[in-house]
Amino acid sequence: MEQSILDRLNSYYDLKRLNNVELTILADDIRKFLIDKVSKTGGHLASNLGVVELTISLLKVFNMDEDKIIWDVGHQSYVYKLLTDRKDEFDSLRQLNGLSGFPKCCESRYDFFNTGHSSTSISAALGMARARDILKKNNNIIAVIGDGALTGGMALEALNDVGYNKTKMIIILNDNEMSISENVGGLSTYLSKLRMGNGYNKIKTEVNEVLNQTNFGKGVANSIDRFKDSIKQLVMPSMLFEDMGLKYFGPIDGHNIKYLCDVLFRARNVDGPVIIHTITQKGRGYKYAEQNPSKFHSIAPINPVNGQSLSKSSSVTYSNEFGKAIIESAKKDSRVVAITAAMPEGTGLNKFAIEFPKRFFDVGIAEQHAVTLAAGMAKSGLKPVFAVYSTFLQRAFDQVLHDVCLQNIPVVFAIDRAGIVGSDGETHQGIFDISYLNIMPNIKVASPKCTSEVGLYLNWALKQNCPVAIRYSRGGDLKDIEMIKSESISEGNWETVKNGQKIAVIATGRMVQHAVKADKIIRERNNDISIKIINANIIKPLDYNAIDNICREGYTIITVEDNILDGGMGREIVSYMSQKKYNNTIVNLGYEDKIIPQGDVNSLYDIYGLSPEKIADMVINVNNEGEK
Amino acid sequence: MEQSILDRLNSYYDLKRLNNVELTILADDIRKFLIDKVSKTGGHLASNLGVVELTISLLKVFNMDEDKIIWDVGHQSYVYKLLTDRKDEFDSLRQLNGLSGFPKCCESRYDFFNTGHSSTSISAALGMARARDILKKNNNIIAVIGDGALTGGMALEALNDVGYNKTKMIIILNDNEMSISENVGGLSTYLSKLRMGNGYNKIKTEVNEVLNQTNFGKGVANSIDRFKDSIKQLVMPSMLFEDMGLKYFGPIDGHNIKYLCDVLFRARNVDGPVIIHTITQKGRGYKYAEQNPSKFHSIAPINPVNGQSLSKSSSVTYSNEFGKAIIESAKKDSRVVAITAAMPEGTGLNKFAIEFPKRFFDVGIAEQHAVTLAAGMAKSGLKPVFAVYSTFLQRAFDQVLHDVCLQNIPVVFAIDRAGIVGSDGETHQGIFDISYLNIMPNIKVASPKCTSEVGLYLNWALKQNCPVAIRYSRGGDLKDIEMIKSESISEGNWETVKNGQKIAVIATGRMVQHAVKADKIIRERNNDISIKIINANIIKPLDYNAIDNICREGYTIITVEDNILDGGMGREIVSYMSQKKYNNTIVNLGYEDKIIPQGDVNSLYDIYGLSPEKIADMVINVNNEGEK
Repeated sequence: MEQSILDRLNSYYDLKRLNNVELTILADDIRKFLIDKVSKTGGHLASNLGVVELTISLLKVFNMDEDKIIWDVGHQSYVYKLLTDRKDEFDSLRQLNGLSGFPKCCESRYDFFNTGHSSTSISAALGMARARDILKKNNNIIAVIGDGALTGGMALEALNDVGYNKTKMIIILNDNEMSISENVGGLSTYLSKLRMGNGYNKIKTEVNEVLNQTNFGKGVANSIDRFKDSIKQLVMPSMLFEDMGLKYFGPIDGHNIKYLCDVLFRARNVDGPVIIHTITQKGRGYKYAEQNPSKFHSIAPINPVNGQSLSKSSSVTYSNEFGKAIIESAKKDSRVVAITAAMPEGTGLNKFAIEFPKRFFDVGIAEQHAVTLAAGMAKSGLKPVFAVYSTFLQRAFDQVLHDVCLQNIPVVFAIDRAGIVGSDGETHQGIFDISYLNIMPNIKVASPKCTSEVGLYLNWALKQNCPVAIRYSRGGDLKDIEMIKSESISEGNWETVKNGQKIAVIATGRMVQHAVKADKIIRERNNDISIKIINANIIKPLDYNAIDNICREGYTIITVEDNILDGGMGREIVSYMSQKKYNNTIVNLGYEDKIIPQGDVNSLYDIYGLSPEKIADMVINVNNEGEK
Repeated sequence: MEQSILDRLNSYYDLKRLNNVELTILADDIRKFLIDKVSKTGGHLASNLGVVELTISLLKVFNMDEDKIIWDVGHQSYVYKLLTDRKDEFDSLRQLNGLSGFPKCCESRYDFFNTGHSSTSISAALGMARARDILKKNNNIIAVIGDGALTGGMALEALNDVGYNKTKMIIILNDNEMSISENVGGLSTYLSKLRMGNGYNKIKTEVNEVLNQTNFGKGVANSIDRFKDSIKQLVMPSMLFEDMGLKYFGPIDGHNIKYLCDVLFRARNVDGPVIIHTITQKGRGYKYAEQNPSKFHSIAPINPVNGQSLSKSSSVTYSNEFGKAIIESAKKDSRVVAITAAMPEGTGLNKFAIEFPKRFFDVGIAEQHAVTLAAGMAKSGLKPVFAVYSTFLQRAFDQVLHDVCLQNIPVVFAIDRAGIVGSDGETHQGIFDISYLNIMPNIKVASPKCTSEVGLYLNWALKQNCPVAIRYSRGGDLKDIEMIKSESISEGNWETVKNGQKIAVIATGRMVQHAVKADKIIRERNNDISIKIINANIIKPLDYNAIDNICREGYTIITVEDNILDGGMGREIVSYMSQKKYNNTIVNLGYEDKIIPQGDVNSLYDIYGLSPEKIADMVINVNNEGEK
């Protein structure tokens, strides 16, 4: 069987020698490769299918030994990885110790900046371009950013700086009319106007035609330049970028390698900042992804033949339960509204959006705005719920602190993907939220121990007269244990899930399930140890009476949280014990001040000591220590 | 003596009855009042002098019993406070328990949202406008935002959402070509183009003239609408806002009450989002402020006759020492560059900017972009130093964590105004940075104990191969104690400032000076107590050997930090002691999980237990406890 062109590429340099026809065939090979590999490992499929020709063209035109490409967000970097000598590593994509789903400098000399969160690329690229100028080098710097990521405030801050400074760099606006879901916002409306324009290849002739039609050059001599600009605007309404000081090329068909290479060559020669507006189709070349790009944005393993998921994971997830619960709350109380920052599906809000379209607000990739928007809504009598992944709420740290907590405004934060999230890896681990919320005044933080409690927590949160965060894990419940749903929650009422002697495990959120399973494991191994299990349902404020009682009764304490240790629940308990001069032994389980890499969630729990087995081991160790 | 119009205003409603001539006289009265009061108390003078007519016009046109104005940042709200029944409170401006220098809902029913940090107003106002619509009310919502604040990413995120959603609201762009210092960025260039336009009052006639000149309407019939838009663009290049979906009125002379009232009336009747572009002069009507608006942005008490400062405070401040030190570093190493987010003067970088203009980057009010820009620079071989106030670095929490710390990139953060800052109050206290940096991997955090050490710390920071934060206080050193400058710093080498028995005070930054002074006070009161004083020069990582030694030697420990307790240095020491099972008594001094209001710094230190006197009291108490 004949080798495909992709098979014959042994290094990035080989691509340079291919002609346009071969490059077009290569694009097909790459699509087949991606569908084949990603259907097995899972990962970001649709966004990568959209940038095949763009990536090929970039590698054809630029010299990656000197030039630098920064991929915004980075989940569209698979094609680039494939073509920069990482083809053989795709079987390990997004797995423990495997190929990352995002650019990683430690992985290849062709990766120049790690990305993961949205909207960082223009800032990083501008920094590199300014460094190049100061260090008197002359390489090219290219940022590739989606139209979704461009709605993130920091990208706009960067655009403002780029245009003013006139530093030579290239921004490629990869416009697919989508964030993860469909795009929103005035900027998006503006971009669709641009898309309807005739495009860069036809501009010159059209301007001339228009000039002829209107008999330009015959009258109003001294306004002619102004009119030319104005006409240019008519054909190519690119004023937003041009006014900001960037040269605009576009719109360009992002699936036409010849056009792309042509415009990239031209852009390379411009001495200043350039924005190239390419129109691409998310999911291009795989019909299921073309039909439903949002669903195929990030997938679990699928059958490539029919696009159906192979995963048998239960559909009872915290996100889904949240989605149901907020619909119920909204039915009962017309003041309840929901906000998302471009994640209606991931956060479980998609059904709410259909049922209550006027009370649903997708603000784009704009977590900062989302939080203060919620604050304004709450100040005027609504009950806003901002559903957001833990890792992305980091973007709005100051808004949570300055606009919500200092003013003690009752905004509800539904923090999804709290704790480790698995294959997205280090940039997406939601392991900081307990710690950063612990330092903010007025806010209460709670965590349901199982999916069936999400509604209870949401109702409680909506009744509080202060900011409240509910944090919950990615996915659902452990399979082989039974959790009894609480009937109510309130401050200062930690739940005793199980009584026991000598050792008290204080766990929060899904870690309560790990503790219950650990208890089962311990009893299977050793009938002498019977631990007490406490569900720290509300983490801030702590249940100080419960801690007093546990300490006074002489328990050794093990705390378990799916969060970093510094500033976390366990450390707050230690501080309280120090103030009250309790000398009980206490062990805090959680993450050290280190980076938690990608991997499947259960492996990571085990490596970092939070799996039921490792908790059981710790209990047995602590028990043995106590008996010495 | 006849009463001025201002004197005769007894309530907000009285203003409604004044005619335009009287309102113009009122504007003069207000300027005199402001100059008189603020010259005594200190405060934000120039920004308020710029919005006198705008505020009067807003109060004339809108009904503040129903309508709501959100003042972005809020330091321009003095005129509004004065006219909404707080005239008699101006003697207490920015003082403990006095009138706030920012909008405060607790202060007046006419304040609707607390502000302080930049760029929040559009989000908050949009939230209120959407709440109004959902709750079926029909009041007006107005956000007043400066051209500087508009460069903040969250304002642009909000603008994107406003334009898309078409919610009725009014945004007043108060364009004075300044942030605190001169404005920067592509947006600023764009706004100056708008300013050069002919303005809203002349648009109609001019469009007609242009149409006549070009014989429009005679040919190209089906393009006429497009051409009209294009011509409109020519006369009023407002496409940026109109393209984003907002109706644009402007530019308007922001010192002409008649014009302002006219356009506000029209805007009130538009059923959708409107942006009114007003041109104002910062410092208007006070010649010293007009000449140097940046210096008069926020002032200490002055002699109003000559504009000279009355404050005798030493010019040896941490900021100034930093400014000198970075010039020295830059002279020695051509890779050193400095970044500010619109604060070249406050951070002490103004001389650097003159000496090294090509290595100085003012990115606008854009802390997020600043941090990732620095990351990009460091990745390409520069040594960037981002000088920023502690409270504003909160805006870039995720960029510090995700773009710098996770990638372990050697960016130096020069964190000024760490700890309590005084009269700016709760929104500006820099009391969170130790805690939020403690949860980030790879970063080192250090704090010079006195101003003369800033250069030493900066040099050390620039040599590290990882992110480093240096935090230092507002102002300078205590007067009546002598500090011996360290010759070097390195990890794991806390400095013993003074030996002593039984009680060890571990302090960081300027709190070391408080401990030294406390020691003096104690010895004056009681010769028996001699405390050991440790300078925790590097806070992250801690000097674990030093803690081991202190604990093993049986000291009682008092930690002192100008930061909140949760997640702070003291609590990290407690956690370490718990892990090592040290039972020494330890007391943590710092701020509880509450809001620290405005007031002079020394009063606040005293109230919250961090003044030398209060530290001395604590030492004596702890000593007495120990002797029981």
